Amino acid sequence: MSITVVGSVAFDAVKTPFGERERMLGGAATYFGLAASFFDQVHVVGRVGADFGDEDLAVVAMRGTDVSNIERVPDGKTFFWAGEYGWDLNSRETLDTQLNVFEDFHPTLSAASRDCDVLFLANIQPELQLGVLEQCREPKFVAMDSMNLWIDIARDALIEVIRRVDCVVLNDAELRQLTERPSIVGAARAVIEMGPTAVVAKLGEYGSALITEDDFFALPAFPLETVVDPTGAGDTFAGGFVGYIARQLDGEPTEPLLRQAMAYGTALASHTVEEFGTQRLERLTAGEVDARVENLRRITQFEPLPAPLEAS
Amino acid sequence: MSITVVGSVAFDAVKTPFGERERMLGGAATYFGLAASFFDQVHVVGRVGADFGDEDLAVVAMRGTDVSNIERVPDGKTFFWAGEYGWDLNSRETLDTQLNVFEDFHPTLSAASRDCDVLFLANIQPELQLGVLEQCREPKFVAMDSMNLWIDIARDALIEVIRRVDCVVLNDAELRQLTERPSIVGAARAVIEMGPTAVVAKLGEYGSALITEDDFFALPAFPLETVVDPTGAGDTFAGGFVGYIARQLDGEPTEPLLRQAMAYGTALASHTVEEFGTQRLERLTAGEVDARVENLRRITQFEPLPAPLEAS
Repeated sequence: MSITVVGSVAFDAVKTPFGERERMLGGAATYFGLAASFFDQVHVVGRVGADFGDEDLAVVAMRGTDVSNIERVPDGKTFFWAGEYGWDLNSRETLDTQLNVFEDFHPTLSAASRDCDVLFLANIQPELQLGVLEQCREPKFVAMDSMNLWIDIARDALIEVIRRVDCVVLNDAELRQLTERPSIVGAARAVIEMGPTAVVAKLGEYGSALITEDDFFALPAFPLETVVDPTGAGDTFAGGFVGYIARQLDGEPTEPLLRQAMAYGTALASHTVEEFGTQRLERLTAGEVDARVENLRRITQFEPLPAPLEAS
Repeated sequence: MSITVVGSVAFDAVKTPFGERERMLGGAATYFGLAASFFDQVHVVGRVGADFGDEDLAVVAMRGTDVSNIERVPDGKTFFWAGEYGWDLNSRETLDTQLNVFEDFHPTLSAASRDCDVLFLANIQPELQLGVLEQCREPKFVAMDSMNLWIDIARDALIEVIRRVDCVVLNDAELRQLTERPSIVGAARAVIEMGPTAVVAKLGEYGSALITEDDFFALPAFPLETVVDPTGAGDTFAGGFVGYIARQLDGEPTEPLLRQAMAYGTALASHTVEEFGTQRLERLTAGEVDARVENLRRITQFEPLPAPLEAS
């Protein structure tokens, strides 16, 4: 199997209660790739500027990821985002967004990345997501992300993308905005009616939920006493979730497979937020990921009831 | 075993996107009692006015609850709260609070309610909670709730109560405010250092978490497409949680017991929010509660991994 991800490869400036970084490697496709590369061959499709160094590219290329689809524009600058988090790390303010070379991003996929079995459309303009879908031969599983901006200004194109993918990964605010349904379950069911078979609701520090046509699953975030930098958590989650599916896929993904994939996404994301940027992901080992998944199982189980209420 | 709860018995006016109720039975002790009475004999200790009808009292007395500790003040009015919920039911605005007879509430417990095995101190002034603790003979398990107001204006007394209970039940915002720790886990651990052996963090639509000295457990809310009125969800949860503990308690509550108690609290609360006020709780059956607990187990389980990442 192989996984193609199309999205931003970027630099971020981040301020959290634990410190400040003026320029660190970031971007949805970067975080996704660093997580998914634990499971399978990944192709990252993106666009960067002349300021993107070989050492930055080497990080994206970790664990065998193919970076030949990352175009480097000689006279351009890399997409730059700056943000600041509040004291409890749940609120964040965007201080600056410079699209730079990303403004003219028109993804062109190599033969190898078109041949992927699994495709992840990270958060980019829906029209570009459609263009990528056209280029891919026969992916067995396609998942996508998006954001409030596209729900606002490119709603029709976004719904066309949603119609054509297997799985939508959005946060709770985006699901509500997209469907105008107040409950997460209601909103997710409305998305499933558009076409996908699964919706993953990202709930930030509260974890995530998986909604399929006739099932529901929820998983808490891995409990951490200290979160240093939440940047990239959602994209790391997506990389672990989609990566696990790619590794185990045999026909349609089953409910047990999707649930385990959620656990891998959660375990990987919990590592990302423990340090700034991609730092922790770069040092992470497969054994550490497995251990956290097992730990997640332990903290979410409760035993069958010894004495139901009705019998009393 | 028997359970004593001390707290408000009240009237609420509520407006949600699903309708409006000008006066319905409410109050923390009411919801707690209606939930806990599924498990054990409950004594409700509270104070109401002349406007509190026999039909209201009959609801509080359901499933054998002892209401002889509810003082009815002949020339007084019952505590009244009015609030309005936002479109997604996660935000709410208090429109009116009239303490009325509750302002001079000085709980005096009957012999039977002092003899309780399990005590729940619902959200009242910490000084009153201390007074109740003094009156109770030898409860085996004491849990408490509180609110932002007491953290602000009666912090020392509140910490004195916390020091003397087994379990603190607060929402995430209250835990953060009380401890000035940004993460829920960190905040809960700081509370445990004050004395209790367990902290339950109520996370609203995201569920709840249980933090003990060396363990953690999280449970999502039961997924509902439609929430009609969230009023009383937290107190119903507490009633189910504490009720289950009272029913099964044999020595110190074990981690498996506390986890199952969380599931009962969650199941009961999910019924409360499906209708206005206490309506659904009044009609609820033990079998319906058991079924929802079993359902909760189903939607939170994932299978052990067939192929750990490390082995690949």
